This record gives sequence, structure tokens and C-alpha cells, in this order.
Amino acid sequence: MEGKEMYRLAQRLFPICRSLTGNGVRETLKILQETMPNMQIYEVPSGTRAFDWTVPDEWNIRDGFIADGQGKRVVSFKDHNLHIMGYSEPVDQIVGLEELKRHIYVQEDQPDVIPYVTSYYKRRFGFCMSKRQRDGLRAGQYRMYIDSTLEPGFLTYGEYLLPATVLGGAGQEILLSTYICHPSMANNELSGPCVAAALACWLEKQPVRRYAYRFVFVPETLGSIVYISRNLEHLKRAVAAGFNLSCVGDNRAYSYIESRKGDTLADRVARNVLRTHAPGYVTYSYLKRGSDERQYNAPGVDLPVCSICRSKFGEYPEYHTSADDLSLISPEGLQGALDVYRKCLRGLEYNRYYRVSCLCEPQLGKRGLYPTESYKGSADAVRDMMNLIAYADGSMDLIAISDTIHAPLETLIPLVDRLTEAGLLEICEGRGKGQ
Amino acid sequence: MEGKEMYRLAQRLFPICRSLTGNGVRETLKILQETMPNMQIYEVPSGTRAFDWTVPDEWNIRDGFIADGQGKRVVSFKDHNLHIMGYSEPVDQIVGLEELKRHIYVQEDQPDVIPYVTSYYKRRFGFCMSKRQRDGLRAGQYRMYIDSTLEPGFLTYGEYLLPATVLGGAGQEILLSTYICHPSMANNELSGPCVAAALACWLEKQPVRRYAYRFVFVPETLGSIVYISRNLEHLKRAVAAGFNLSCVGDNRAYSYIESRKGDTLADRVARNVLRTHAPGYVTYSYLKRGSDERQYNAPGVDLPVCSICRSKFGEYPEYHTSADDLSLISPEGLQGALDVYRKCLRGLEYNRYYRVSCLCEPQLGKRGLYPTESYKGSADAVRDMMNLIAYADGSMDLIAISDTIHAPLETLIPLVDRLTEAGLLEICEGRGKGQ
Amino acid sequence: MEGKEMYRLAQRLFPICRSLTGNGVRETLKILQETMPNMQIYEVPSGTRAFDWTVPDEWNIRDGFIADGQGKRVVSFKDHNLHIMGYSEPVDQIVGLEELKRHIYVQEDQPDVIPYVTSYYKRRFGFCMSKRQRDGLRAGQYRMYIDSTLEPGFLTYGEYLLPATVLGGAGQEILLSTYICHPSMANNELSGPCVAAALACWLEKQPVRRYAYRFVFVPETLGSIVYISRNLEHLKRAVAAGFNLSCVGDNRAYSYIESRKGDTLADRVARNVLRTHAPGYVTYSYLKRGSDERQYNAPGVDLPVCSICRSKFGEYPEYHTSADDLSLISPEGLQGALDVYRKCLRGLEYNRYYRVSCLCEPQLGKRGLYPTESYKGSADAVRDMMNLIAYADGSMDLIAISDTIHAPLETLIPLVDRLTEAGLLEICEGRGKGQ
Repeated sequence: MEGKEMYRLAQRLFPICRSLTGNGVRETLKILQETMPNMQIYEVPSGTRAFDWTVPDEWNIRDGFIADGQGKRVVSFKDHNLHIMGYSEPVDQIVGLEELKRHIYVQEDQPDVIPYVTSYYKRRFGFCMSKRQRDGLRAGQYRMYIDSTLEPGFLTYGEYLLPATVLGGAGQEILLSTYICHPSMANNELSGPCVAAALACWLEKQPVRRYAYRFVFVPETLGSIVYISRNLEHLKRAVAAGFNLSCVGDNRAYSYIESRKGDTLADRVARNVLRTHAPGYVTYSYLKRGSDERQYNAPGVDLPVCSICRSKFGEYPEYHTSADDLSLISPEGLQGALDVYRKCLRGLEYNRYYRVSCLCEPQLGKRGLYPTESYKGSADAVRDMMNLIAYADGSMDLIAISDTIHAPLETLIPLVDRLTEAGLLEICEGRGKGQ
Repeated sequence: MEGKEMYRLAQRLFPICRSLTGNGVRETLKILQETMPNMQIYEVPSGTRAFDWTVPDEWNIRDGFIADGQGKRVVSFKDHNLHIMGYSEPVDQIVGLEELKRHIYVQEDQPDVIPYVTSYYKRRFGFCMSKRQRDGLRAGQYRMYIDSTLEPGFLTYGEYLLPATVLGGAGQEILLSTYICHPSMANNELSGPCVAAALACWLEKQPVRRYAYRFVFVPETLGSIVYISRNLEHLKRAVAAGFNLSCVGDNRAYSYIESRKGDTLADRVARNVLRTHAPGYVTYSYLKRGSDERQYNAPGVDLPVCSICRSKFGEYPEYHTSADDLSLISPEGLQGALDVYRKCLRGLEYNRYYRVSCLCEPQLGKRGLYPTESYKGSADAVRDMMNLIAYADGSMDLIAISDTIHAPLETLIPLVDRLTEAGLLEICEGRGKGQ
Repeated sequence: MEGKEMYRLAQRLFPICRSLTGNGVRETLKILQETMPNMQIYEVPSGTRAFDWTVPDEWNIRDGFIADGQGKRVVSFKDHNLHIMGYSEPVDQIVGLEELKRHIYVQEDQPDVIPYVTSYYKRRFGFCMSKRQRDGLRAGQYRMYIDSTLEPGFLTYGEYLLPATVLGGAGQEILLSTYICHPSMANNELSGPCVAAALACWLEKQPVRRYAYRFVFVPETLGSIVYISRNLEHLKRAVAAGFNLSCVGDNRAYSYIESRKGDTLADRVARNVLRTHAPGYVTYSYLKRGSDERQYNAPGVDLPVCSICRSKFGEYPEYHTSADDLSLISPEGLQGALDVYRKCLRGLEYNRYYRVSCLCEPQLGKRGLYPTESYKGSADAVRDMMNLIAYADGSMDLIAISDTIHAPLETLIPLVDRLTEAGLLEICEGRGKGQ
């Protein structure tokens, strides 16, 4: 599953009206199950407590519109699901323009877009439209109509665990979390589930997995809180590194959001890979967090989770508006994100503490690994290999060595294989267990 | 006691001839006692040993002048007490110009000022005047006259302890030291005692003091050495942070002098507060020390003492000359220093290790602390609060959180109160005891 | 032994044909023994194993040339020993130009120099000449002639130990390693043995040596590997700091190559001394290593060895060519290197943990160490002394104090003596044993 297939998946998922709960979430997860048949789907009843939170009633919507005096629809849910504020309670009411406007939401600084607005925890209803459209509304009577239900139901999420193939990872896992609660928007957020699905496909095909890989598809914020509340012990024990996949679909930038602690294994591999893959990438501190990394990094949860994005949430103009549509993302954008994450995961698989197996430099020449004539510059050709050997003292993991000798992980991985085969490099089992 | 009252106090203290010992010191302390009636005054006899030092004879002076052949006073102690070198022994002698000049001190690079010169530990006498005046002296006979006494007496200092009102500070104290040995100079050094007195007034009125506050009014260098030698054990056990108050009266700059270790609690709060209060403040390393911080930070003494100044000693042209007069300092200058120190002390009072009381983010909306509508930008209004919660993991004190999230302590303190009241933040008693 | 004598020694050693093994090495060591009569010379038989390596056959050469059809020598070993590739096997063969060229080595990017080429571990033979000369060769028959032997013999190296004169160094040593395998080249590498010999002379004359000094003269790479393999236990236990002396003869630059760990005692003193001695010096990370520091710093060997060079190997155009001749180095260049190393060794001798012997500042005035008149600026004259006292808390060694107070070691050393005599400074025996 590469760029084009990811984009096709995004096209298919785009029209579904997802929210914090409801059938849109279920439908989305079912489509994702086509790629990951072993994904488990969980239903958490309304009223369930999760730390400081309670799962609210389930919301479903069939229709919604504003109609003018002539019955002409001014805005309609059928045209765009962003026209109805998420979690709007049902209404059917005739009102004057002034009263209508109290229920209209626009993006004042972007006159042509429909904003994305929700009110999950306080009952109200609302309509979203472009500022231009609202300002053009004439005085008169309007019908506000929303055919929705807010009833005890469930919060729905999916989980997919791809086990390790070897025991080397010591029962540790890589966590990949993304969210499935946004209605029709593309970079934020259909790109996350699409790239996650592609990563799952790719990982399944790997002959060796030292780590298990845990994919989590949840509604944002409450979903991750519920998920953590049900799995905290396990996550704290097992997760070696994690990533929140969000905004990974456009082709304009690479971004990286630090974990709270800023130097976890996840951060280290992300920075290492980005430095080579996308030297111009932008770093955001944890102060610029905004998605489920907030929950994974919360005090007492303390999971080593960071994010690599393309254009990061909150940092591009189309964010949380109808302009974040399928034209914003592209097969190339999705592919770039997939490539970066693959490099990170491959780096983590190889990230062990290595030690050169002899004292002083090994004699590489007799193994055909070094030029037998010594002249000015003859050592340059094997510089990365020599540096790898020089720093493989059992105290630095491969990421640290890569950072130190300025050689990309993807350059070092084949050298690790070659030197290991030659018996010159060995893994220090005692160090960095599970990393 | 605010800027104007501080300035008035400085005006009243200015004419007194202070020195290392003597009645000028006593008179000064008595005036300060009007503000701090519970201040204890100590008299340490001449000959007392204090570490490597010995308290010298007490010096008092009634008059002193140079008169020309006509009996006209060229310079007179009555005009300016800087005209007589501090600790001058008595003299009454008629000499020619050449011999006279051997006893005249001028500031060669500042022709119009009287320099401040002392000779505490070697018996000599001297007259200080402007270079211009000295250069204008004509040949002839001059009378050198100083009516002073150097006799066994006392070194005098004051100490004022304001106790904590609660047990939370675990018996710890904040040390505030300043000096009372400089004759008629204003920024260095009447500003220090004046701001110290105002801080004492302000602290007395605080309903809660987690720390005790120990004010020390000593003659510089020997006074602090004597004070430390008599209180070392207690100071080392009790002082959580300390400040040497000096040069806090003019309105041209804010300066900060690091402690020797550079990262004590005192340094941390000083840097934190200055960053917001006076972003252009100048940092001086401990290599630029010069006042009693030298003793408090000496090896083996090792107290966490730094300084916040306005124009720092040694760094402004009027320093240690008659130009450092009441026109150099101002109510505004003194007020600025008072404000900074208040912010530091308030910050220290609140500087504890806080921990959010639930796992994952708390649901602030249901407590009226968070907007219930979610739209683009809705989280900005509560950014500082969310960041405070995100970092309140019990491992960072409030200063560290403030540094990390770039929110001033004065912004965080009311948030701490609000979140504590809401039961969302708790103090980690186990951590950072007394800090 | 200063600059001129070092240069004369270089002149004398220059013509000798050194290599990995052989009589050129022996002859060189014998000349060095004139300066260091107690130097031990070791002979390690061919076939001896040293970690991953084996000592190869010994190589000796009597003559070698290419002659044209008329018997005229195109290049000759007698003219320049670089004309014959190091470790060339014997040959006597008439060939055409094309075949001849297969055995000719030139430096393609430097048309006028003879490159330095060796093939220690794979049997071949070769001739080196300038590119210009090779390109001018006309078609015809040529005689390739090398009269060399490759037979079981020995690898030869020298070691000279200068013992400590006191017990203060706790049996610790300073290691000074250089190499004696390069044929007729001057900066790299006759400068190393010449400066090492001068250092040995100078150290012998010192009345007090807290450390022992171990000089090692080995063929590069294999020599140091052999040496380490025979002395590893002792070196790991005894070496407090070490330096690889290479490229210390020209007068164009000062360079410093970090040890692998980058902050050993050797690095610290090198950086400290260079900062003052040669502020424009260039720092090379361990990634730019290339000489025997590779072996001393190898994982598991882990000796604290760095290098101070003049123009560093690989970084100047004449490197490893016939242009690295006696005109490249100079008495001044050698002297500069000698001076820097002397300062480093002297700094190490004084590098102890000092503690001021009284609490608070000592009263220097009564000891004649401080001006008794206090006026603006009077403390400047004793600034370095006051700073030394202020930081002598027993937690920092002298290098750390020097770094912190920005005063060169050579300024501090007499102050240490003076304050120690005055009883104001004492050595903390418990700390930094042997450093």
C-alpha cells in the first residue's frame, strides 16, 4: 500500500460523517478492517468513567439544514457535513434572522470556508457556513432543522496488534495512534488512519519484527483517554516508543512535535531520520502539542510518544475548515510520511547496543573490507564503516552512533549486517533491553 | 513603603558619615529601627577574631580640613564627608604643597568628582578632592587637620528576623543582606538599606509567609565576615535562597550577578522574574562580584546568594565618587528594584512541586474553566493553564514550569490557586522540601 | 633541546628509509637513543599476533629503479625513497610502457609531487613518481628493478620511561606516543619523534615530576596495536593522560584532535593551553582522527589520548607526498609545538584540587598580597588571585578553575605557589587522585 492506494482510501473515507461517537466511526473502522482484518473493535458504553471524564451519549445525525421562507435550503448537511456543528441536538424551529445568527458559526478571518465546530459536552446546536454566506443572509424567517439523536450508546474504537516475530524485543511494543473522529477533512484527519493502515501492511510483510506494533484508532482526546484508562498498566510496561499519526497527507512541509520529555527513544529516532530525510523540517516543542500526544504524555501516563507530521495541525490556513479537503493532500504527501515512518521503525528495529568484537581496530583488509593499498584518501571510501567500528563500544545505541558520526541509519544498517556477518560486531544483550 | 518613602529615607540617611565602624553606623541603624522596631543591634568588640580577620579599632571623626596660608579651608569634612579618607588617623600639621599632595587622592580619569577612598587596615590619613581642585592648588603652606579617633570600640550591625507564619517552609529562610558602611553616596549605598526596609514592611503585611526572612545590615566585607562567623551553622542549615541588596536605586538598568554556583534557587527565581520584568537586564557572572556576595558564596560558606541590582557597582561612572549622590537615584529607580524583589519573594513562596491530581488531561469544561465549544483557536485562551497542567508532574518546581512554558510566575500564581481550589493540583510534600 | 636542535635532528633522520619494519626503523631509534640513552628497543618477531593483526615479514630495500631502453634511470630509490612503494616485493623485469604504468602511482590532483604509497599486507610492487613525469614517459621497453627482501624478521619499536620523582602522582603516567615508520617526509613524520625527544630532555631536567612519563616510538597503526597488546593492563591502570605526537613541525597552524570521549584530562589541558597559546587553533572532532589515537581510543582500550598538531595530517596539501620535506618544517614550527606540550605537561603537574584554607575571603592585605588602600579599581591588580581563591573549593581542579576564571594556567601556577607558601591554599588529597 503506497501513495496512490492511501489516497484512494482517503477518497473513500472522506464523505463519511465521523464524530466523537456514532455510526460514522463504525463505518470508518469497518473499511479500515478490510486492510487489517484482525483489528478488534471496542464499544464503550455512554456513562463509562475514564479518569476525569465520562463517555457522553452517542450522537447520530441523518439530516440538517437552514431553509429560507421559500423553503430553499441555505445550507444542508447533505452538501457538507461540516455545515452542522458536531453533536448538535435536534431542532426544528422557525426564527428570524437575528435569532438564527445566534446559532451560526463562521471563521471571521477566512470568509470563504466552513469552519469545523463541535460542542461535545454542552448541549446546543449550531450551523457552520462561510462568513460570506452568513453576511449575505437577508432578513426574514428561517427554518432551523436538525434531525439528530443524542442517546445512550457507545464510544467506538479500533485496536490492531501485530506481534513480534522474535523474542529480541523483550515483549516491548511500538505504539502507533491515530484518530477517526473528524468529519470531512483530509489532512486533519484522514491522512493519519490511511498512513497507519499502510504501515500495518508494510510491517506485516517484514520477515523479522523485534517489536510488536500496536495500532490504535480512536476518537481524539476522549478516545485516547478511554483507551489509556483501559490499558495503562500494559502501555507503561510495554511501549518502547510511540507516535501519534496526524496531519500526514499534504506535501508542503515536514514537522516534528517533541514529546513532553523531549528526548525519548521516539524523539531520538524521529530527529535522526528527519535530519537526513527532510533537512528543512520544522521542530515544534511540546508547548505546541494539540492532538492525542497530550494524553500519552500526560503526567503519570508518561509514554514516550512524539509526532512527525507533514503540515502540522494549527499551522496551515486550511486547518479545521472545509478547505482541508482532498485537494490538499496527495499521493506524494502521504508517501513522504509513510517513508519517514518506515525509516523510523526500521531504525528502531536495528537500534541496539553494538560492540566491536576485538581490541584496537580490526584488520579489515584481510576480509576484503578495506583497500590494501594505503595512499592519500584511501580510507575515505570506508569512512562510515570505520566510524561505526570506532564508536561501537557498547555504550551507545545505533541512533546515538548515527547522530555522532553523521551517517544516516539507512547507511549504517547494511554495514551493521556486513560487520555482524564478519564476526566483527556483536550485540550487547545486557544494555538497553528492548530498545 | 513605596518609591517616595524609600527616597525620603535615603535623603534622611544621606548626610550621615558611615564607615566600617563608628557612630555613623549606629545612627543609621537607629533610623532603620523606626521601620523595623524588632531589629536587633549587635556590637562586636575591637580585637574579635572572625575567620582570617580581626575587628579593628573603632573610628570616629568630628572634623577635618585642609586650610591654606590664609586659614581658608580648601576642603572640609563639613562640606562633604568624602573629603576625608575613611579611617584617617588624626593629624594637625603644616606642610608645603609637595608634602600635602602625598596625602591627596583624586580620580585621575574623572576630574570633577571626589573619590571614595578608605584605609581600614593600615594607619594613614588622607584627603580626597577633585583632580581639578588639586591641580589648582598653588605653592605655599597648608594645614592638614583631622580630628578623628581610632580606639578600641565596636563593629556594629543590625539583624531583623521576620518569622514564617506557617510550617510549610520547614524552618527555612530567605536571607536579605545589605550594607551600612558607605558615607554620603546614594546608589552605592543607601539604596540597599532603603529597599531592604521597604521589603521588610511589605513582608510584615503578608498574611502567609512560608519562609522566615532574615535581614542583615552590616558594614561591607568585614561586617558580613563577622556575621557569617557568628551564624555559619544556622545559615548553612536554614537559608534556602538569599540576595545581597546593593545598587538598587537608579533607573538606568537592571543587572543580575550570579552566585558562584550559578544555578541556586536564588539565581533561578532572579532570572525567571527578570526575564519578564526587565527583558533587557544584564547578566554578570560571579567573576564580576564585588560586594558581600563574595563572603556568602565563599568556599565552605556556600550560601545560595545572588544579587539583582539596578546599575551595578563598578559599572557606572559615578560609582565610588561624590557623583553618586541623591540625584542619581529616584523614587522610580527604588520602586523598580522593590517590585523585582517582591516578585522574587512571592515566586519563592509559591515555588513548590505541584502534581496534577488526575491521569490524562482533566475535563476543565465541566468546571467552567474551559470553553465548551471547540473551534479553531478556542484553546488559546487557556493556554497557560493547560501548559501548567501538562507539566505539573511532580518533578519540576513552579519556577522550572514557568521557565519551560514561558509564562511568568505572576501569571501562574493565580492559576495555581484556582486549580488547587478545583482540586486539580496538589503539592508534592515529598519533593523539594523547603523550596 | 630547542627549535634549532630539533630541526637538526630532523635533518639527520630525514634521508633514512623507514617503513613498518626494517633497518631504517632501527637506525632511527639508535639516533634517538643518543638523546634518551635509557630508551629500550624491542624486537617483535614476524608472525606474532596482536589482537586482530599479525606482524608481517620484515622489509628491507637496497635499491630500486625504472630504467629506460638506454639504461637511463627514470626514477631511482637513491634519489628519493618515496619512488618505491613501501613493502614492494623484489622485481627485475623488462616490460612495455603499458605494463609499466600498471605499477606506477601518482597523485592525480598534484602533478608535481611523488606520492607516499605502501602495501604492507598484500604483496605487490610499485613505483611512485609525479604525474607530470609519468605522463611524459614515451613508449618503449623499461626495466623495473627492486632489490628488496621480505623475510621473517621483526617489528622494532622503542620505549622510554622517565619515572616520577615524588609519590604524588600515585603511580600514574603521562603517555607520549609518536611514530617512526614514515620514510623521507618531515611534518608527517619526523616532527613527532623530534619534539618527543626534546620533551624527554626537558622533563629529565625538571626537579619534580609528580607523574611518570612514558614515551613510545612505534611504527604507526600496527606498532601501536602491538604495543597496546603487550601493555594493555598497565596502560589502562596507569595512564592519566596521553598525547599522540604527529605533524608538529610546520608553522602555519595549531590544531587539536579530540579524544573519542572528548573530555578526558588530556583534552581538557590541551584546550585550556591552546585557548591562550594559540587562540585561532582549529578543533577537529574524533571523526577526523587518523593516526595512533585511533588505537589508543579504540573501544575497550579507552585511553585518554588526544593530539595537538601544527598543520594536521590530511589537512595540508603536502601531506603524504614528497612536498612534505624539510622546507615545510622549521625551528619555529617545532618550537611552537614543544612550547604547547610543555605548557600542557606543566599544567598537568599542577592540576590538583585546591581548597582555600579559611572560611570567607582571607585578609590578603596583612600578608602584603593586597593593596591596603581601597579605591575604585584597587582590586583589579589582584583579580586573578582573588578569583583563584574564590573558586578553590576543593571541587574543581586547577584546569577547571582556569577555564572558569579565564586565567591561563601559566598565570595561575605562580599564584598557587605563592598562596600555598602563605598557607592559604591546600591540596585536597582525597580528590582527583593522581590527576
